[in-house]
This record gives sequence, C-alpha cells and structure tokens, in this order.
Amino acid sequence: MEKASNYQELSVDTIASRLKTIDAVTSRIGTDTSKWQVKEVGDGNLNLVFIVEAPEATLIVKQALPYVRLVGDSWPLPLYRAYYEHEALVRQQQRAPGTVPEIYYFNNEQALIIMEFLQPHIILRGKLIAGEKVANLSETMGKFCARTAFRGSELSMKSADKKADVGLFSGNVEIPAITESLVFTDPYYDAEMNHNTPELEGIIKNIRSNTALKNRVQKMMMKFASNTETMVHGDLHSGSIMSTDNDSRIIDPEFAQYGPMGFDIGMLTANFLMAYFSQPGHRSQADLSDYQGWILATIKETFEHFYAEFRHLWNTERTGMLYPASLFEDQGQSSAAACDDVLDHILQDAISICGIEMHRRVLSLAHNADFESIEDTSIRAPLEARNIMMGAELILNAENIKDISSLTSMAERFNTGEYL
Amino acid sequence: MEKASNYQELSVDTIASRLKTIDAVTSRIGTDTSKWQVKEVGDGNLNLVFIVEAPEATLIVKQALPYVRLVGDSWPLPLYRAYYEHEALVRQQQRAPGTVPEIYYFNNEQALIIMEFLQPHIILRGKLIAGEKVANLSETMGKFCARTAFRGSELSMKSADKKADVGLFSGNVEIPAITESLVFTDPYYDAEMNHNTPELEGIIKNIRSNTALKNRVQKMMMKFASNTETMVHGDLHSGSIMSTDNDSRIIDPEFAQYGPMGFDIGMLTANFLMAYFSQPGHRSQADLSDYQGWILATIKETFEHFYAEFRHLWNTERTGMLYPASLFEDQGQSSAAACDDVLDHILQDAISICGIEMHRRVLSLAHNADFESIEDTSIRAPLEARNIMMGAELILNAENIKDISSLTSMAERFNTGEYL
Repeated sequence: MEKASNYQELSVDTIASRLKTIDAVTSRIGTDTSKWQVKEVGDGNLNLVFIVEAPEATLIVKQALPYVRLVGDSWPLPLYRAYYEHEALVRQQQRAPGTVPEIYYFNNEQALIIMEFLQPHIILRGKLIAGEKVANLSETMGKFCARTAFRGSELSMKSADKKADVGLFSGNVEIPAITESLVFTDPYYDAEMNHNTPELEGIIKNIRSNTALKNRVQKMMMKFASNTETMVHGDLHSGSIMSTDNDSRIIDPEFAQYGPMGFDIGMLTANFLMAYFSQPGHRSQADLSDYQGWILATIKETFEHFYAEFRHLWNTERTGMLYPASLFEDQGQSSAAACDDVLDHILQDAISICGIEMHRRVLSLAHNADFESIEDTSIRAPLEARNIMMGAELILNAENIKDISSLTSMAERFNTGEYL
Repeated sequence: MEKASNYQELSVDTIASRLKTIDAVTSRIGTDTSKWQVKEVGDGNLNLVFIVEAPEATLIVKQALPYVRLVGDSWPLPLYRAYYEHEALVRQQQRAPGTVPEIYYFNNEQALIIMEFLQPHIILRGKLIAGEKVANLSETMGKFCARTAFRGSELSMKSADKKADVGLFSGNVEIPAITESLVFTDPYYDAEMNHNTPELEGIIKNIRSNTALKNRVQKMMMKFASNTETMVHGDLHSGSIMSTDNDSRIIDPEFAQYGPMGFDIGMLTANFLMAYFSQPGHRSQADLSDYQGWILATIKETFEHFYAEFRHLWNTERTGMLYPASLFEDQGQSSAAACDDVLDHILQDAISICGIEMHRRVLSLAHNADFESIEDTSIRAPLEARNIMMGAELILNAENIKDISSLTSMAERFNTGEYL
C-alpha cells in the first residue's frame, strides 16, 4: 500500500490508451476507443474523476492524487487511500446492498477504481440548493446509516473478524488526520488554512474564546480518534450522495475508518441543517417554507428509518458478542431497553458531531456550496451565523436533546434569526 | 506470530540444556548448569514460570502454554500472546520506568521471556491476605496507571504512532476475548465454567435477573471492546503486583490491549475492595479496623497520586493532537477544566469496571484467594455478598459517584453488612 513507483496520473488524453487493455472496461464499453468520450469532472478535493462514455455504456474512473487537490503539492496525501476506499465500498455493498456504486475494477498501484456511472443521478447538494425534493431520501439514508453501523459492529460481526478489520484500517493514518484537523481542531483557532465570511468575525471570536465549547469538541475528538464501534463512511455529507427525484446512492467512502456509530448520521444531519439554514439565500419567500419544511421532515424521517432499521437488526441479526441473547432473550427477558440505550448513545454522539460539522463548514478550510454559493455576503453571513449558533447549542447541550423533534424545533427557532 | 512448529514446553529437567546457550542467560548466571537450581512456580492460569537460581544471580523464565492451564487442553490459547506481553513490557518500561521487571531475553518461537527475578518481592495479594502493609503502594500504582494511561494515548503520542500500535495489538484477539467472556458476560448468566459459594444462590439470582444491571455491563463491554484510548495492562489485580514492605512492581501484562484509560485503575480498585471486604475472614477484630482502614486509604491515595501525576503530565507532556495548546494555552486560556473533565470520564469508566470486576471474581471462572482462601463458607458467603452488592451499586450508579471518597464511604457502609 506504499506509493507505487509505477503510479501515473491519468488524463483526458491518456485514459483511452491506459484503459483499453482492461477486460472489465472493454467488456462494458468495447475496444473502439475512438468512440469513447472522456470528461474530467472531479469537483472534490482529493481525486481525478473521469466519465468515460461509449455507445454501449458509461463508466466512472476515479484515481487518487498524491496531494490534496484543493491545496496542491504542498499537502501530500498517500495514494493508499484508494485501497481503503475500495475496501470500504466492498463492505458497504455487503452491509447495505444497492446503496453504493458497483465496482468493476480496482488497481492498487494506480490508486484507481472503475465503477458504475450513476445516471441520471446528480450530487444531492445541488438539488438541495435548487430546491428539488428527493423522494425516499430519508429511507435510503436512514437504512444505510443503520445497516452499516449495526453490521460493522460487534453487535453483528464476530469479534475476531471485526478486530482484524480494525487492524487493517489502522493503516489509514492520514485520512483520519484530515478529519481530526479540519473538523475538530482548526475551526476553533486561527488556523492557517481557515477562511470565513468577513461579517462573521465577531461571532467567530466568541466561538473561539469559549473554552467550555472547545473542551466539548476535544472530548468528542478523543472519542472519534479512540473509538472503533463500527466502520463509518466518514464523510457522509450531501456531496457524497447522488440522487434522482426518487433514488439516492452513497459515494466516496475514502474517509472510511472505524469510529462511533453516530458519526455518519450526525454529519449527514449537519449537512441537511446547513441546507435548511441556507435556503433564504436561494429562493423566494413563496417557496421557502415548503422546502425548508421538507428538509426538516427529511431529518426527522431519516432518524425514524434509522431507529426502525436498527431495532429490526437488533432483533434479527444480533449475532455478535455484545448484548448476547444469553443474557436477555434466553432468560425470558427483553433487551428492548438495552437497544433504546444504545440508540440514545448513538443520538448523543450524532448531535455532538452534527454541531461540530456545522461549525467546520463555515469556519475551517472546506466550506460547502449551500452557503458559499450565496454571493452577497450580507445575505450569507446572517444565515451562517444561525448555523454557527445552533452548532454551538448542539455541542454544549447534546445530552439535553433527547429526541430528534427537539433538534428540528431548535432549528426552527434559530431559523427565525431572533437568537442573534 | 503463529504457533511455531518448533515450540517445546520447558520443564524443570530440560531447562538447563535449553537455556545454556543463551548469552543473556549465561552472562548472568554462568555456564555451569550443575549449579543452577530450578523450580516451577507458575500459579497463574496461562503459563509456565520457572525460577532459575545460580550463585551469581537468579532469573525468571516465563513461557506461554498453548492452552489455559486452569482448564487444560480443552481451552487452547495462542502462543503469540507472549509476543504481545513482551511488546507491552517494553512500552511500560518506557512509560513508567522502573515499575516492571527488566527483560533479559525474548524468544517469540518459544513464547519465552527471561527477566529480572524480583526479590524479596512477593505477590501483593498474599500480603493483603496476611494483613501486611506496603509503604508507597498507592504512589507506585497511581503513578503507574497515570503514566501508562497518559503516555499511551493521543494526549501524548503522535497519532500515526498510536494508530500503528493499535493495528499491532489488534492481532491479539483471543486475550481480549477472555476478558469479554469471563469479566463482562459469564458472571451474568449460568455460564458453563462459572462457580460460586453455594450460600450466594439467592443474591446471584437477583443479579442475573436484573436487566438494568446487565444492560449497563454490556454498555461498558461495548466501550471496552471498541475503545483505543491507551494501551492498558488489562489484568491489573493484586496478583499482578509484587511487593516488599516498601516497593512494588507490576508484572504479567499479557492481557495488554488498547482500551479505556480508566480500565487499569478500575480493576485495581476492585481488587483492593475485595481485599477490604474479605478481611473479616482473615484476622481478629483487634487488627481488622486498622488494616481495613489502610486498604481504603490506599485506594484513596492511589487515585490522588493518579490525579496529581495525570495533571502533571497534562501540563508538561501534552504533545499529542488531543486538547492541543493551540486551542487553550496559546490563546491565553487554561485547559485545567478540560483536564478535570477527562479525569471525570476516567473515573466514571473506572467505577463501572470496578463494579464488574468485583462481580466476576465471585461469580465467574477465576476467583481470587482473598475470598477463596476463607474455607468456612458461612463466613465467606456474607463477605462475598457485600462485595456483590457494592459492585451492583457501582455499576448502576457510576455517574453519581463524583469522587473517590464517595466510593470509600460506600465501601464502609457495605462493610457493615446492613445492606443485605
């Protein structure tokens, strides 16, 4: 998994000659490369992504770059993350069938994954900014989070298998380090790569001088860095989801690692909340309330599907060493209260993670288009401020938020702007 | 680290011929094996332990057995645990110098560690049963727990080094599995290898039917199995400590793994409490109060030394990514409250672990001599019952015990027997 000496970046010009001898490619799009149409579409931070279109079919070709694209050569990043991305995709396909792209080919040396082209899917974040509803989104995401959380944990897996997998993923050091810096640390001091909307200086100063808040965030980072409950996607924001009007798929698990079961659904919720708070920058008052209501309903229903699926798996697939039937069902006792406690624990972690993700997306390096595409900063800044203030509230009071309705009600209160 | 085909159990008869060509041995005890006196003294569950005495010096020779000695061939156990024991001893020597035996020789294929013979040290549990006080015990143990907890965590270590070490130790599957079964699961149902003092049937039935209690224990097991805060000793009871009247050393870290920072001090506290509760079975009323008072003072002072040393390391060696100075001191802000929160978190975990260890030592397979050597079960049973009841109280109310004085006061209340 070291950087291979034969690694060569693909380009639009070289891709045909590089891929034309791969059976997994030619069996799908033929050998006549003159008919291949190639576009580079990578809009993320870390990779080259090509669409290779032929009359027969279309493929996605994703290649890791040896540096952070957003920053450049000055931030090198190991190519072996493609290995972990591939391993994660395989596990996600097993644990939540049908939710991730099908893999056609993997080449470790070239840090290259060739996979299913999702069509007519587009990045969910774009739809959220455009005000487009996606049917079944909450069900897909709630079940994906529940299935990957449960089936990757020792509630389900044999301990020996799970511990071997923790060992495997422990080799992926640099990727968690990005999360540890950009998500948990940089937002809370004047880190070099940070940037923010200028009008927020006052509120940011308050956040960065709040030691109780920073203490809470670091406690969560300790949990994140020292917790192997399950294999998480690790970067489950609305840019890692591709949707049509009624179908959604999850992509880009290159930040997969072992971590808290609440991590993915917490980060996802934050990105839904940022879509929610940013809406006044994207649409007229006439459509606003309906679409914002749909986003909050999506958050609520995502958790409802998560809970329902997690409970279902608890009752039907609890084959790991944790909460064994020998202690509960075999003695004629219910383990339902124990399941509720595990779900409460997941919710607490998710709420903390949610608040932290809301902060880092407006305070740290990697902002998101929900806010960033609002060009008029006098409109953007107060919306980002609502998001920052609610993030702080979530971090500081996570244990007092006992259900997801409390969270969505809180969002409605902050959305009025009266708390600023 | 697989079982090696050349592995051969040592015996009193073969040890001289096996060791006489090892420089690390002969440089210390000479080559004239006719002067070597060999005794097998292993009284633990998993290993052969020999004392090899020569005019020049004395050595300890410890060899892992491929099965659990207490149970026999029917419970095989991988020899590679000697590899992890050796790795753990190396780390403990670095992190808490002078507290573990010096290693002279390690042979992975033979699962063999040759090390310092501690003299005139004897197993602490024997001294506690005999009513002998050990000066400096609390300081040695408090500092050992603080130094290994802190220096093995990402408060101190570079994340890349710590994560590589988590990967290394993730290969040690069977040893954590023993703890997961014998400590966290078996005590709470009628597991095959369990045994208990017959008079306790009623109280044990109550414990095993208490779903809230079992729920709490499983939650702690999930934490134990999914937490990599630091490298813990993993079996830090009074049989893993050797003491003179004023010096103590820590041995036998073959249960080392990554786990919660509160694990070791929690298990140690349980073993002190079991020594405390068992005292009426070992001495006359005249000596009882003084010695029991000394044990409780030892618990209290162990935590005081732990806290003081942890705070000292927090202020002087906080070089890891967690709670970085950039967020606190560099901004002119104190991180003392954050340190207090981490210590509270450690205390909570320690209290839960303490209660669980108190249970497993009277309900599961591996009992301890504190209670077991009280032959008259009509004397033993009520003392064990106090221990079980307090264990349950600790598990069920861990979050309400905010300081160690509350714990020692609770022990005094249960020691009256009035709660039964």
